[in-house]
Amino acid sequence: MSENDALERLAALELETPSWGYGNSGTRFHVYPWPGAARTVWERLDDAALVHALTGCCPSVALHIPWDRVEGWDELACYAAVRGIRIGAINPNLFGDDAYRLGSVCNPDPRVRMQALEHCRECIEIAQRLGSTTISLWLADGTNYPGQDDLRDRYERLTAGLTELYALLPVGMRLLVEYKFFEPAFYSTDLPDWGTAALVCRRLGPQAQVLVDTGHHPQGTNVEQIVALLLAEQLLGGFHFNSRRYADDDLIAGSIRTTSRARSTR
Amino acid sequence: MSENDALERLAALELETPSWGYGNSGTRFHVYPWPGAARTVWERLDDAALVHALTGCCPSVALHIPWDRVEGWDELACYAAVRGIRIGAINPNLFGDDAYRLGSVCNPDPRVRMQALEHCRECIEIAQRLGSTTISLWLADGTNYPGQDDLRDRYERLTAGLTELYALLPVGMRLLVEYKFFEPAFYSTDLPDWGTAALVCRRLGPQAQVLVDTGHHPQGTNVEQIVALLLAEQLLGGFHFNSRRYADDDLIAGSIRTTSRARSTR
Amino acid sequence: MSENDALERLAALELETPSWGYGNSGTRFHVYPWPGAARTVWERLDDAALVHALTGCCPSVALHIPWDRVEGWDELACYAAVRGIRIGAINPNLFGDDAYRLGSVCNPDPRVRMQALEHCRECIEIAQRLGSTTISLWLADGTNYPGQDDLRDRYERLTAGLTELYALLPVGMRLLVEYKFFEPAFYSTDLPDWGTAALVCRRLGPQAQVLVDTGHHPQGTNVEQIVALLLAEQLLGGFHFNSRRYADDDLIAGSIRTTSRARSTR
Amino acid sequence: MSENDALERLAALELETPSWGYGNSGTRFHVYPWPGAARTVWERLDDAALVHALTGCCPSVALHIPWDRVEGWDELACYAAVRGIRIGAINPNLFGDDAYRLGSVCNPDPRVRMQALEHCRECIEIAQRLGSTTISLWLADGTNYPGQDDLRDRYERLTAGLTELYALLPVGMRLLVEYKFFEPAFYSTDLPDWGTAALVCRRLGPQAQVLVDTGHHPQGTNVEQIVALLLAEQLLGGFHFNSRRYADDDLIAGSIRTTSRARSTR
Repeated sequence: MSENDALERLAALELETPSWGYGNSGTRFHVYPWPGAARTVWERLDDAALVHALTGCCPSVALHIPWDRVEGWDELACYAAVRGIRIGAINPNLFGDDAYRLGSVCNPDPRVRMQALEHCRECIEIAQRLGSTTISLWLADGTNYPGQDDLRDRYERLTAGLTELYALLPVGMRLLVEYKFFEPAFYSTDLPDWGTAALVCRRLGPQAQVLVDTGHHPQGTNVEQIVALLLAEQLLGGFHFNSRRYADDDLIAGSIRTTSRARSTR
Repeated sequence: MSENDALERLAALELETPSWGYGNSGTRFHVYPWPGAARTVWERLDDAALVHALTGCCPSVALHIPWDRVEGWDELACYAAVRGIRIGAINPNLFGDDAYRLGSVCNPDPRVRMQALEHCRECIEIAQRLGSTTISLWLADGTNYPGQDDLRDRYERLTAGLTELYALLPVGMRLLVEYKFFEPAFYSTDLPDWGTAALVCRRLGPQAQVLVDTGHHPQGTNVEQIVALLLAEQLLGGFHFNSRRYADDDLIAGSIRTTSRARSTR
Repeated sequence: MSENDALERLAALELETPSWGYGNSGTRFHVYPWPGAARTVWERLDDAALVHALTGCCPSVALHIPWDRVEGWDELACYAAVRGIRIGAINPNLFGDDAYRLGSVCNPDPRVRMQALEHCRECIEIAQRLGSTTISLWLADGTNYPGQDDLRDRYERLTAGLTELYALLPVGMRLLVEYKFFEPAFYSTDLPDWGTAALVCRRLGPQAQVLVDTGHHPQGTNVEQIVALLLAEQLLGGFHFNSRRYADDDLIAGSIRTTSRARSTR
Repeated sequence: MSENDALERLAALELETPSWGYGNSGTRFHVYPWPGAARTVWERLDDAALVHALTGCCPSVALHIPWDRVEGWDELACYAAVRGIRIGAINPNLFGDDAYRLGSVCNPDPRVRMQALEHCRECIEIAQRLGSTTISLWLADGTNYPGQDDLRDRYERLTAGLTELYALLPVGMRLLVEYKFFEPAFYSTDLPDWGTAALVCRRLGPQAQVLVDTGHHPQGTNVEQIVALLLAEQLLGGFHFNSRRYADDDLIAGSIRTTSRARSTR
């Protein structure tokens, strides 16, 4: 690739910002608020539009359901369009309800698994309403102590649940499967590494791809090699660009996200 | 040491439980509540008393200020005594106020450092009122990005601030200095390792000792060797018994704490 | 599974010891010799036979080519049989020749790749001569600096090379593909994790399975979960039981190896 | 500090190269030789002189005893001087003799400790003969299994041995104490972290200082903070500039070493 080619591609790169990055966030110890933090989805879209106006490379914003849920989705799409941006990936939340204490799609209780699937179905509908073609899935599922649940049973529930979810996807919609080494679970995490995500996506089909959060690996992991391998296997779905010095820190400066389809370019 | 000696010493071991371990806690993602969780310091003491009644080896409970602050300290001491337990270490909170965003005793703003010191002074007074002889100090101080503050300035503020705090200690009261590899800060932590805590305690004097939380080290650290060395240097002040598979998890089953003075036994 | 079932299965477990574990070994700094260390394959078989005589559960010994190469393979098989043991997995050596400086099957030079394949072909023949049904493959391939080679090219060479090797396997012979997080390479390792090994085995076919060395993972990895997942995917081929506190240490006490086929037992 | 000041200081920075970096080296698996590798101390000095001629900032070369031992030390000093370089730090080797299997100054056998001290005494004499003012000490001492030795006894032997060594230092000679997280030992390392090195140096006196090898820390360690703290405590003695992605790799490109006295510059 020539230098000009590289610069041209770089100029064409589109980054998606996450709506939740515009609000206050923090650690388990305290959330230190800052003046001007966005409080509603409307303010988050305002901020995202400003970022795009200033950078020219952030034309879309990812939403998180239910944090960004509104009564009128058409109004929201309109609000974004008027400000020169569009709605990007829809992110289901499968950890914020008390029911998810032992997991969502991997929960031993079938009613909770049903609730999780139902929430994903709603997210797919929202995506369709908003013209989004991507569901970006991160599971907080896991266990905190050895023996708390059966690891093989959990893997069966994981693949069964995602298979049901995959069947709900309309043509042209992608499911991005994100993995994370640990947290919030501290003994086992049901989608802990790219290998699990890749095997699951292979089972599901071509609309499922792996999402690489650069901050979700064990110390020392060669992330660029994982990217090379996922490209070779046509399983690379997108990135979350976070730093990670110790654990996943989700520091605001780094929480940029791209859902532009990764392409094997050789 | 003979087997009998060992068993005898084990039988004499007293563990201190932390009041906050009896309430709900969680991760930055969600706090999953459980029925029966203690809601007030009175309920926390009830639970601590029950644990001691059942185990016979948990006669004291550590308090956290301001979480456990009450109007009448004498009433609280009485409440504990009636239930067969006593008040153990007093833990100042130097992270829960918005002012501590850039640190407490290491904060670049002298007014915040003053506020932190004032809080510690109050904790010492509370300890004296309650018959406690231990201040257990954990700082959440640190920075999230390189260049956010000057590392050498922060170390100067750390030693200056703890020197002022040390001067406030009455005779017979210990200051336990806890270290932690990272979290909540993600770039630098002002008390990141036992070496820093040990050098600081050496500066302060014999009433300052190092507190080893077994979950506060980098992966692979030989914690037993640190304990051996602190014993040899007469700097071992106590333990927090937490597990750590990835990051500090503070899992409830492990958050037992001992403030019984560590003794070099050879 | 009842307690009796578990004990019965445990009693039936066969462990394979590696011939190289009976000789001197060490670190890059020094090899500290010990008296009585086995010096030849014959002495290694003597020692393996003694271990089996004493334990009753180590009936086979893995060989490493060329370290264990002899003129007369029939004589060697006979020597083992007379001593009550048999030959287990055959391990090709793809790092001990100066030609392998930049890798073996991933080497940019096709002549070196050819040499590596030729060595594997010889190992397959040796296995057939000795009645062994397992080739156990560990690659030392990798790079030490970013840019030293193209990661995507290396992955192509890896899959192409192993495909050729797989084609050489006779019916009934398994290929175990071992992964390792790092070492001897320090920037990228061509088979760094179970995910890569699993995807490669899937490409190759049912005679290829993943070998889990318990000491070959990043710090904090939940190895039992990897085992559960490989069982579910019918990709678990065997174990090397090494400890790992820091890096792969291959400490002698732990370098036991089983090539008994792993079975999904539910 | 102004930009000009910074550039001026950078231009004045002198780096010391280690003689062993000019020869072949490798991992425990294999040493891949390269043509032109220096074979003798004379060739190593030739190479070091070439590096200095090309860079202008590497005027000294560290020696390793016994690898660089010669009959005539005056001739060696002369050989270096003629080539425009000088002899830097002298590095005792306390791991290459079979006697050091269980350590050198921490060895349970007093005869081995005596041998180690005797070797250090020789190194001090060599330093004096060659006009070097620095002994750079790295210990490979440690244990591989819990219980192999008593951790507190080893720490006593460590401090006792280094105290004896320190007493041998002539006026004006520094002892640099290097620490390393692990390797070659895999359970405990007797000088595992900067904290141990700092406490030991404090015991010894002002001629002892800590040497920071940038590749000798646990994953994620904030090395710049350690440097800031050692500066503040006037304990910073020098650096070894190695990279470390996984374990200590000692990759040639990075194994530059400075023994120029670290100064607190504010």
